Amino acid sequence: MIHPRLTLALTIMEALAIFAYAISGFIEARTRRLDAVGTFLVAVATAFGGGTLRDVLLERRPFYWVEHQGYLIAIFVMSLFAPTLLKMTSRLLSERVLLVADAIGLGLFSISGTSIAHDAQMPWFTSVMMGVLAGVFGGVIRDVLCNEVPLILRDSRPYATCAFVGCWLYVLLDYMNFDTVYSVLIATAFILLARLATFRFNVRLPH
Amino acid sequence: MIHPRLTLALTIMEALAIFAYAISGFIEARTRRLDAVGTFLVAVATAFGGGTLRDVLLERRPFYWVEHQGYLIAIFVMSLFAPTLLKMTSRLLSERVLLVADAIGLGLFSISGTSIAHDAQMPWFTSVMMGVLAGVFGGVIRDVLCNEVPLILRDSRPYATCAFVGCWLYVLLDYMNFDTVYSVLIATAFILLARLATFRFNVRLPH
Amino acid sequence: MIHPRLTLALTIMEALAIFAYAISGFIEARTRRLDAVGTFLVAVATAFGGGTLRDVLLERRPFYWVEHQGYLIAIFVMSLFAPTLLKMTSRLLSERVLLVADAIGLGLFSISGTSIAHDAQMPWFTSVMMGVLAGVFGGVIRDVLCNEVPLILRDSRPYATCAFVGCWLYVLLDYMNFDTVYSVLIATAFILLARLATFRFNVRLPH
Repeated sequence: MIHPRLTLALTIMEALAIFAYAISGFIEARTRRLDAVGTFLVAVATAFGGGTLRDVLLERRPFYWVEHQGYLIAIFVMSLFAPTLLKMTSRLLSERVLLVADAIGLGLFSISGTSIAHDAQMPWFTSVMMGVLAGVFGGVIRDVLCNEVPLILRDSRPYATCAFVGCWLYVLLDYMNFDTVYSVLIATAFILLARLATFRFNVRLPH
Repeated sequence: MIHPRLTLALTIMEALAIFAYAISGFIEARTRRLDAVGTFLVAVATAFGGGTLRDVLLERRPFYWVEHQGYLIAIFVMSLFAPTLLKMTSRLLSERVLLVADAIGLGLFSISGTSIAHDAQMPWFTSVMMGVLAGVFGGVIRDVLCNEVPLILRDSRPYATCAFVGCWLYVLLDYMNFDTVYSVLIATAFILLARLATFRFNVRLPH
Repeated sequence: MIHPRLTLALTIMEALAIFAYAISGFIEARTRRLDAVGTFLVAVATAFGGGTLRDVLLERRPFYWVEHQGYLIAIFVMSLFAPTLLKMTSRLLSERVLLVADAIGLGLFSISGTSIAHDAQMPWFTSVMMGVLAGVFGGVIRDVLCNEVPLILRDSRPYATCAFVGCWLYVLLDYMNFDTVYSVLIATAFILLARLATFRFNVRLPH
């Protein structure tokens, strides 16, 4: 049985993840001096790019952003006020909070991607790949649109690697017949903590 | 009842839109000094990219360029003569004519995208998003392939914004039970005129 | 009847093609100084990008890399040792061997793309387009991810052009009722030889 509180926790994490990714789109858009509509498009592509690619590959419909129109509309409204919003967030939210939100996004999108792919009868290695793709692809589109080498590819700090290991942890928990909600929470928490630890201990991958 | 003359008008506008987008691909390809095949690929991606993305998202088949092979073949032949063609067009067609053709393309692809998405049971906000995507995505691929920040994102002149407003106008007309062909023509004309007005009155979006 | 030896030949060529494309991803990743996971993602995108796009456009499932997980795992393991591997290959394999492998990949992916598209009832011109796309798209993604104008677009040496002509040769052989395996081998060999001939005779396309 799934506890209602856990479901609520998942919904909140999901919203956090989407807005964290959208805000990272706003920030990138500002450094490129994009206008309001460009900002909206980059933010939407960042927030929903990974999940949409996953659904296209798995032939799942409807897309998340079709079912939950509210997120689209909220990001649209936020785009109109993005400059003001960024000023506010840079005052209210420290760099660290954004980092945490982004890490939650990475964790949640990766784990849900793995879980959904496995439900669609994909073998485990493929499911993990789909999860990592779903987690990182939004940021890849954002950077390609803004004409940069994707951060995930050039950052020497483990990013996709955290997602990769976390997805395998999820696979392990699922194999051990853990309740899905607990597995999702534990694996997401692992990715979050692993990502934060790379900053704390200044971990860098070899080139 | 749809008047045969209106259908003819739509077919002509469609052909105009495809060729206008293809020619913008040729121009971009020339500034990057691409060869004939590269030019063909960029032109095809520009002309059909938006519609193909729309159809992948909506799971519609066959693609437009599969059903109307003639356009592909025509663009292929044009690619072989692109340098000559561009010299001819730069003599025969002024910058302004190209701008008008591109604006017709933007209008027609956006409105038809909105209409098709709504027919596929998408809610209105999503349909408008799909329409704007279908209208602008060809240009985005063109610019990504040629390694530039997409024009639509960096141009401070309203582009996606014109499409966005025009799509909502179409939604309004449809809601008021206008004949579809009239709605399409009116909304496309609106986008065309709005886009041209931004040049006439030098409208710029705030950064 | 298909000769078992020919089937074996095809399987070997396929493996060669995938690894050749993956290695070209490794090389590009090294010049961009990507880490191990970035290298893996670029290599996988290069090796399977073309076939995946083809399958998305044709609505074919499962994807090649889903059915043949082994390739994914092999590329993953190779990514961990990519720097060492590249040093080894640069000693064992000359530039020329890589070029041949890449040309085999181009040939095989293009011809199998054309064949698969035609089996899915696409008309011939469209099938050839799909084939060329499947052959070159992996390299396009690789270059877009690494923030370069795709090689195939800026290289003045015929690349897509070789694939294009070879695909039409395949169409001709198929039309003449040749056995499929022979047609595939002959057309692939044609693309391979045509590509190598462009280097031998220093052929360049006009700009």
